[in-house]
Amino acid sequence: MSALLMAIWFNGMTPEETTILTLAMRDSGDIVDLSSLPGFKVDKHSTGGVGDKTTLVIAPVVAACGVTVAKMSGRGLGHTGGTVDKLESIPGFRIDLSRDEFFRIVKEHGLAVTGQSGDLAPADKKMYALRDVTASVDSIPLIASSIMSKKLALGSDGILLDVTVGSGAFMKKYSDALKLALAMASIGNSSGRATAVLVTDMDSPLGNTIGNALELAEAIEVLKGRGPKDVREVCIELAASMLQLAGKGSLPECRAMAAKVLDNGAAYAKLCDMVAAQGGDVSVIKNPERLPQAHYKYEVRAQESGYITQMDAELCGIASMQLGAGREKLGDTLDPSAGIVLMRKTGDAVSKGEVIAMLKSNDQQRFPAAAETLNKALKIGSAKPKLRPLVLARIGVDGHVEKFFDEN
Amino acid sequence: MSALLMAIWFNGMTPEETTILTLAMRDSGDIVDLSSLPGFKVDKHSTGGVGDKTTLVIAPVVAACGVTVAKMSGRGLGHTGGTVDKLESIPGFRIDLSRDEFFRIVKEHGLAVTGQSGDLAPADKKMYALRDVTASVDSIPLIASSIMSKKLALGSDGILLDVTVGSGAFMKKYSDALKLALAMASIGNSSGRATAVLVTDMDSPLGNTIGNALELAEAIEVLKGRGPKDVREVCIELAASMLQLAGKGSLPECRAMAAKVLDNGAAYAKLCDMVAAQGGDVSVIKNPERLPQAHYKYEVRAQESGYITQMDAELCGIASMQLGAGREKLGDTLDPSAGIVLMRKTGDAVSKGEVIAMLKSNDQQRFPAAAETLNKALKIGSAKPKLRPLVLARIGVDGHVEKFFDEN
Repeated sequence: MSALLMAIWFNGMTPEETTILTLAMRDSGDIVDLSSLPGFKVDKHSTGGVGDKTTLVIAPVVAACGVTVAKMSGRGLGHTGGTVDKLESIPGFRIDLSRDEFFRIVKEHGLAVTGQSGDLAPADKKMYALRDVTASVDSIPLIASSIMSKKLALGSDGILLDVTVGSGAFMKKYSDALKLALAMASIGNSSGRATAVLVTDMDSPLGNTIGNALELAEAIEVLKGRGPKDVREVCIELAASMLQLAGKGSLPECRAMAAKVLDNGAAYAKLCDMVAAQGGDVSVIKNPERLPQAHYKYEVRAQESGYITQMDAELCGIASMQLGAGREKLGDTLDPSAGIVLMRKTGDAVSKGEVIAMLKSNDQQRFPAAAETLNKALKIGSAKPKLRPLVLARIGVDGHVEKFFDEN
Repeated sequence: MSALLMAIWFNGMTPEETTILTLAMRDSGDIVDLSSLPGFKVDKHSTGGVGDKTTLVIAPVVAACGVTVAKMSGRGLGHTGGTVDKLESIPGFRIDLSRDEFFRIVKEHGLAVTGQSGDLAPADKKMYALRDVTASVDSIPLIASSIMSKKLALGSDGILLDVTVGSGAFMKKYSDALKLALAMASIGNSSGRATAVLVTDMDSPLGNTIGNALELAEAIEVLKGRGPKDVREVCIELAASMLQLAGKGSLPECRAMAAKVLDNGAAYAKLCDMVAAQGGDVSVIKNPERLPQAHYKYEVRAQESGYITQMDAELCGIASMQLGAGREKLGDTLDPSAGIVLMRKTGDAVSKGEVIAMLKSNDQQRFPAAAETLNKALKIGSAKPKLRPLVLARIGVDGHVEKFFDEN
């Protein structure tokens, strides 16, 4: 297997080979059968980002539009928590639903989010361990087959992939992100799943918050038709693509549907239904100030005047982890209240001494290191930077690529 | 290790990397220390051939010229027997000398040939097993480091390598043989051993015999100043290069020395001394007709008239194995008397029905398959073929390459 991985690293794989490998990996373990659930089930997977609370918004939006979301989600393995970590900020919220509970809630509400159980694609875990020690982690077809083997094992009819690109993403280069997106779309569609991909920007954190309860609160704001513009825009794009996969109409029609359920409270109501069904305290959704709050806060101020030209998302994620919001190693316990609130973002003008970010933690000793990291993440220059669009490219189920941005 | 081998297969290695790997492989096991033996010790290694009885001739020649040959030799793993298999045709001859016996005989006669004992380069065995299953056997730097790790562990001061090329050799292509020769010369010389390489032809079998006792008898003929011209010529070239490594003079001077000890009986006497010292029955050397003789023989005749344009050495080796002269698998017992006597060679004119080869075996049932294989090895055409020289290239201790043949 090590030799095969190395050969793939050097030679790549054809789309057919990549699909064959992916299906063999999928078939190495448990496969979730969602066929007893009515209608078209759609799933969404992101390759990871900092401040990425989109699933918390999108799942209720899509369900509110009448498309089933039976989502099994993993914990966060990087600097920041995953979707189930964020949902666990809600007192009582259960992410360990039994199969029967999960199916019952999905049938009743069209929506449930639970932790992954069972042994999904165990070959992937073994292969990843070998890739790690053989320096073959960064092979596009191996990354694609690793992600897709697990997604295909989860049994949805449609899959929307969000391939993030930039300093806070696994893919640092736009060209690599496009290659990965194409490889995953090919695997999904040739395996009988309707698969589309958005390539989205992750140079800066998404939205104004990083940290589990902070992000949940921000997601609730977006679900109430408010919240940061960038989060709303990306969520509408992602949700619209999921609705399109489910055959709900053209992309502009699906965008309008998504915006409508954000603005009329239907998506927010769907989140409340799900939280209640999964044992969570709905009052904290209605009053987000009752979500876990950190005891201490610490201001990070602009060290000079000018425009924020860079806010390195990966370093922001590390700073958030240093505050207690992420895991340094598997098994670490998260502090749901810890994290960062960004008062200014890339492209904003700042004056020397102005507060750019507020750090939050229950352990004051964590502030100096986190502040130092965040300062490293920030660059202030004299010229207003030109920002690239949030959605950089889209790949449809037909494999057609629309690019909204070109690197050169 | 599998990943490393695959990476080397794709990317190759620099000469420095190849030497570092080789020395690590050498150091994985026992290392023979010949330093207590007086003078310059010279070893010779061939990458293998069919009808290749050169060591039986060269070792006595070099020793008769006053250069020490303390040779530890492996058994044949391919279609034909190795040097120790051929020597075992002599009743009583011991190839399992103790260290003390080996050193005593070398000190007394300047010559001994024994089987390999100890655990030489065990890393190579493990790596070879991985190369076998990962299809990375045919990497030139890996072949070079495999051979050289064992040669360096054997402790001689000088190493002459005979890289064979053609249908009966591991290297089928001249360009590959040259690359392997350069790689091995570089490893040897950068490891403090005087190393030279001859690239020799192995498109046709060497000499007129294939099979253990048959080849020994032919070697004795050459040591008596007779024998086939091609065997004598190659042996003089190889022996002269070994003598040159030992500082015995220029190449022409060394050639003259080698020819002299063949013609004046000194090399033959040296073989007799060694055989006696190692417990062998010297009377069979003096009367080779007393070597093991097969009970049955079988004539292979020309199926048409013309010139022999090809005598595929590998197929000749397989035919010989089918007669009982080689091992199909490790551990098989050889029939020392089995083999092939070639009456005609590549380039010779033949008439339809004329005997080209005589098969010899103690089992008549082996003849039909062996004859069929030998017939496949033979091609007869109307034009006399142009033969390439026996020695195709030479690489000196300074890395200088002399080519006596160009492919195009």
